[in-house]
Amino acid sequence: MSTAERPEQGRRSGRRPGSSGTRAAILAAASRHFAEHGYDRAALRAIAAEAGVDQRLIAYFFGSKQELFVAAVGLPLNPAEMLPDILAGDPATIDQRLAALLVEILEQSDLHQRLTGVVRAAASEPAVARMMREFLTRELFIPLTTTLGNDNPRFRLNLFGSQIVGLILARYVVGLEPLASMPPQAVANAVAPTLRRYLLDPLD
Amino acid sequence: MSTAERPEQGRRSGRRPGSSGTRAAILAAASRHFAEHGYDRAALRAIAAEAGVDQRLIAYFFGSKQELFVAAVGLPLNPAEMLPDILAGDPATIDQRLAALLVEILEQSDLHQRLTGVVRAAASEPAVARMMREFLTRELFIPLTTTLGNDNPRFRLNLFGSQIVGLILARYVVGLEPLASMPPQAVANAVAPTLRRYLLDPLD
Repeated sequence: MSTAERPEQGRRSGRRPGSSGTRAAILAAASRHFAEHGYDRAALRAIAAEAGVDQRLIAYFFGSKQELFVAAVGLPLNPAEMLPDILAGDPATIDQRLAALLVEILEQSDLHQRLTGVVRAAASEPAVARMMREFLTRELFIPLTTTLGNDNPRFRLNLFGSQIVGLILARYVVGLEPLASMPPQAVANAVAPTLRRYLLDPLD
Repeated sequence: MSTAERPEQGRRSGRRPGSSGTRAAILAAASRHFAEHGYDRAALRAIAAEAGVDQRLIAYFFGSKQELFVAAVGLPLNPAEMLPDILAGDPATIDQRLAALLVEILEQSDLHQRLTGVVRAAASEPAVARMMREFLTRELFIPLTTTLGNDNPRFRLNLFGSQIVGLILARYVVGLEPLASMPPQAVANAVAPTLRRYLLDPLD
């Protein structure tokens, strides 16, 4: 599930000696480049040049620009991969799929620690906020507009994101009780209907 | 509505010459003291000593510890005053009252700028997160437990807070579109049913 692990597996395969340093150099260059130029204007060619590697190595280690971004930011899950699967299933059971996604986020401490880091950075650094906004718009809001196919699909996805980010802040950053110590499944059951409503139900 | 204005009005009444400096000294001491000791352990006597003023001047300018905190943090609205009013009305029309609260927050740019500042600070500084957590617990979650009178009232208020803070982050800090440029009333209409559900409806 964690896209950040995939390149690690590539490295462990041992096909390319010295690849650990190469991979780290690409990630460092990508982090700087995305923060400076945002997601839309970032160029794999420029990232390769900054890292001092052939551009094809980026494709080898990370695949697409989207996957490089997810790895560089340290996103534990790739929302662009997960949400389409949730929407593809039976609408009558979407609450369960949304709750399962939330449980997955809330149960794994290294996963929510990295999410917390991303939320903190986006809250305090305008450059991080911009690259997150551009990434989410380009890879999630625009592609899912047709999938949702109802009124205001992008607005709905914005609201969905607002509840996810607010939950992370309230539970892990501010540590409101009892939310912070509730079992993941109880939190997921309480929040999933909100997410479903934002995606599929009438908005007012 | 804005509790931060009340002391300003007190100052303008001119009853107490030189009060502007006194008020500013109290606010500065309170900001430091709350950040260092949190909300629960903060003492008005110690704040008065830090500011070099008589403790009675704190009551004169700000009223209670709660109101001093709201002014020191720069909270544009005192949630401890507003939420009880919303809950006191007819449950059948609570969506409208919640939407009106959201419109009030979203329409006034100086108001949401200050809220954004508080959210940013809480996200990046653990001391700010702690004092916000203690303030909300002491002045909002505990007093409203009986008012709500249903299952898990504190958890419900935590979830309510998570959606408010997430909305501020998504609209003003990350600037997701179209959420960031939607009219306040449209945002309020879409989010109010979520807030009502967290407060009053069955949670799963």
